Amino acid sequence: MKRNIKRALFITGLVGIAFSFLACNYTINNEKVTDMKSNEEELDFIFPKGNLGPKELFTGNAYNIGLVDIDDVYTTAVGNVYFEPGARSNWHTHPSGQILIITDGVGYHQIEGEPIQIIKKGDVIKCPPHTKHWHGASPDTGLQQLYIVPNTENGIVDWMEAVTDVQYNNIK
Amino acid sequence: MKRNIKRALFITGLVGIAFSFLACNYTINNEKVTDMKSNEEELDFIFPKGNLGPKELFTGNAYNIGLVDIDDVYTTAVGNVYFEPGARSNWHTHPSGQILIITDGVGYHQIEGEPIQIIKKGDVIKCPPHTKHWHGASPDTGLQQLYIVPNTENGIVDWMEAVTDVQYNNIK
Repeated sequence: MKRNIKRALFITGLVGIAFSFLACNYTINNEKVTDMKSNEEELDFIFPKGNLGPKELFTGNAYNIGLVDIDDVYTTAVGNVYFEPGARSNWHTHPSGQILIITDGVGYHQIEGEPIQIIKKGDVIKCPPHTKHWHGASPDTGLQQLYIVPNTENGIVDWMEAVTDVQYNNIK
Repeated sequence: MKRNIKRALFITGLVGIAFSFLACNYTINNEKVTDMKSNEEELDFIFPKGNLGPKELFTGNAYNIGLVDIDDVYTTAVGNVYFEPGARSNWHTHPSGQILIITDGVGYHQIEGEPIQIIKKGDVIKCPPHTKHWHGASPDTGLQQLYIVPNTENGIVDWMEAVTDVQYNNIK
């Protein structure tokens, strides 16, 4: 009887080992899976991903979704851009400036002649009218950013040349 | 020797049981903790919570943080309001209208004379100029909402009377 109890405990013990091993392994695997996850899956998507931006205007993959279309009532364009790690816009200006609201991730913003500014979840960035700038994700982490372009009666954006790798990597 | 191996496996087995039990219990406890979390902790806070809105303008607890101050460059006010469940603004109008962007939670928006509209994460709502409306959280879930007030040279907001419980509960 005593031997049977011991045997039962022994078997249960083995099941326990197996279970805890599986549990650990699952956790470990989960972490590995997390590590292997593309950045896209780690960031919060408040809005649909949108459409891939054209290669003429973006380096890497940036996806844009318009949230407020331009009209003469609100005279404001609003949208969201998801930048994959390493992706960025070309240099550009806005006739009435632009407001960026970072809702997730880590990225870069640079006004011409100034150092690259690291931007992250919760940051709000203003770029004045007719000021040359670019924005995008950091090399390792993507970026979710809302953009607000005010006073669209003056125009929206004037696109310029691509941000070179040398410019992108010139972090101080 | 064989008995020692069995004993070692038996003890390891017990440790295994204990470990797996702890692991399960931890998960279960974690779920319980999640269930007990207040709504505030369940919602994503992109921005600091901000300051409690005055009782004269809000029913329940609504917290406002300004993100873009009014100036004559961008002529746009941007901020975030976190509404606790059941909290809502008074009725009000905006001279140039308002854009709401819901970043988390579930809430209500109503334009005077129209049914209450249920709003949730990812929704974008426009309220035209000089149009009486109110917005807030649903009774059970809070709301995180960005607001954009364009063309602030015309003014920001004109506050009116509170939304009664009868009005708030008039969901169709």
